[in-house]
Amino acid sequence: MAASGDEEGAEGPRCQHRSTAMLDVPFLPFCAFLGTLGLLCVAMVGTWCQHWRGGFSLDGSSRTFNWHPVLMVTGLVVLYGAAALVYRVPSTWSGPKLPWKVLHGGLALGAFVLTVLGLAAVFRFHNAQGTPNMYSLHSWMGLGTVLLFSCQWAAGFGAFLLPWAPAWLRALYKPIHVFFGSTILMLSVASCVSGINEKLFFSLKNETTAYKLLPAEAVFANTLGLLILIFGVLVVGALARPSWKRPDSNSPDSRQ
Amino acid sequence: MAASGDEEGAEGPRCQHRSTAMLDVPFLPFCAFLGTLGLLCVAMVGTWCQHWRGGFSLDGSSRTFNWHPVLMVTGLVVLYGAAALVYRVPSTWSGPKLPWKVLHGGLALGAFVLTVLGLAAVFRFHNAQGTPNMYSLHSWMGLGTVLLFSCQWAAGFGAFLLPWAPAWLRALYKPIHVFFGSTILMLSVASCVSGINEKLFFSLKNETTAYKLLPAEAVFANTLGLLILIFGVLVVGALARPSWKRPDSNSPDSRQ
Repeated sequence: MAASGDEEGAEGPRCQHRSTAMLDVPFLPFCAFLGTLGLLCVAMVGTWCQHWRGGFSLDGSSRTFNWHPVLMVTGLVVLYGAAALVYRVPSTWSGPKLPWKVLHGGLALGAFVLTVLGLAAVFRFHNAQGTPNMYSLHSWMGLGTVLLFSCQWAAGFGAFLLPWAPAWLRALYKPIHVFFGSTILMLSVASCVSGINEKLFFSLKNETTAYKLLPAEAVFANTLGLLILIFGVLVVGALARPSWKRPDSNSPDSRQ
Repeated sequence: MAASGDEEGAEGPRCQHRSTAMLDVPFLPFCAFLGTLGLLCVAMVGTWCQHWRGGFSLDGSSRTFNWHPVLMVTGLVVLYGAAALVYRVPSTWSGPKLPWKVLHGGLALGAFVLTVLGLAAVFRFHNAQGTPNMYSLHSWMGLGTVLLFSCQWAAGFGAFLLPWAPAWLRALYKPIHVFFGSTILMLSVASCVSGINEKLFFSLKNETTAYKLLPAEAVFANTLGLLILIFGVLVVGALARPSWKRPDSNSPDSRQ
């Protein structure tokens, strides 16, 4: 059955509380696991491009293209995920909020810069090869995701880091920012997965290594795609988990 | 900046409440919009397969394959989304809960049956053509999604519809069921999008209709992919929205 069941037993909140306590996972070990998984994704996409796809260069060849998957997975998935989780770290819940805002915005900015470089790599490759840009569903979805991300960053910076936004505007915008934060990550993951799928169909064509014969490269890159999916699902799940949210989000230092 | 900001203004809950009230969308008009969008996705995937891909048959040809996208979008995305949203309809919040549970489980079962038929179509096509099954990342992700869905349905049926599950087990399993409900929908959408992308690369190959020349079919199917993404994001967002959740989930009739 699908989502949304509200069917806990008749014994009510006490029973529910006891049972959900059984499911409680501490945040920091979970975060360490997520970090390891994220680093594994980065290492695997780098290994794929280095070992099977010829490595990296800036000469407009397919070795220039190889920067694209590496930078997208690193920026738009792993670093973005880290930025999204900053406010779930319990040590951010007390003391001044400004340093954590700067960390959140800084990590997101880093993710954005890597993402733009990743786009530049694929445009440079296409232009050098005379291939049109922006025709596949993967490219439409990916560029849409990056455009949403740029709006999200600019609006977050204007509303939460600059001192001029009034309290009512911050309160109005906050749930929108949170919603699009998770949405952009889901779109990033879907873009990465469709891109890996597409790249394998492009690359594994001849009879000895055709994708459908499932050579080692295909197994490796398919596994990478599944790990990216798991990473994205776990980050979105962690963001949604009520017990990991900042307990008091109305602290007086929220306006800097 | 990314998800998770907790930066509403210093004026606290009252200001926040006023501001979020400004964002309040009534559920039923939203649901009507979602229903229209879902039907549009079904109509578009049917039109794509009928108009550009040769229509439907059961003879093992590519016209057998065409059932695959139609049944997956209809079952695993649109009908699944409808099943997931049942408990968000305000009229389900009072009176006996059993009929709504049956509706939720029945819609999910319908979605599952269409999904299995959709899988059967692609296996039949591959087998008739001598193409291996289960090699692409799309197929790994898609089958993984369907397996998760089957576990979710069986576990939901056992825990919430059969009368034997104890209250503590229901309370323990409920957040897991809710989490996987949204997760499976996200995976379904990612599977559909990667599948549409892959199919367009397979189908639009020769020089007059190559995908990269962006013929009408490519624009149409890319647009379908984006609409499926928007549908999925809106359903997951609606499921997560606190004000649309059942206010009292501890009613005594939750055990039938």
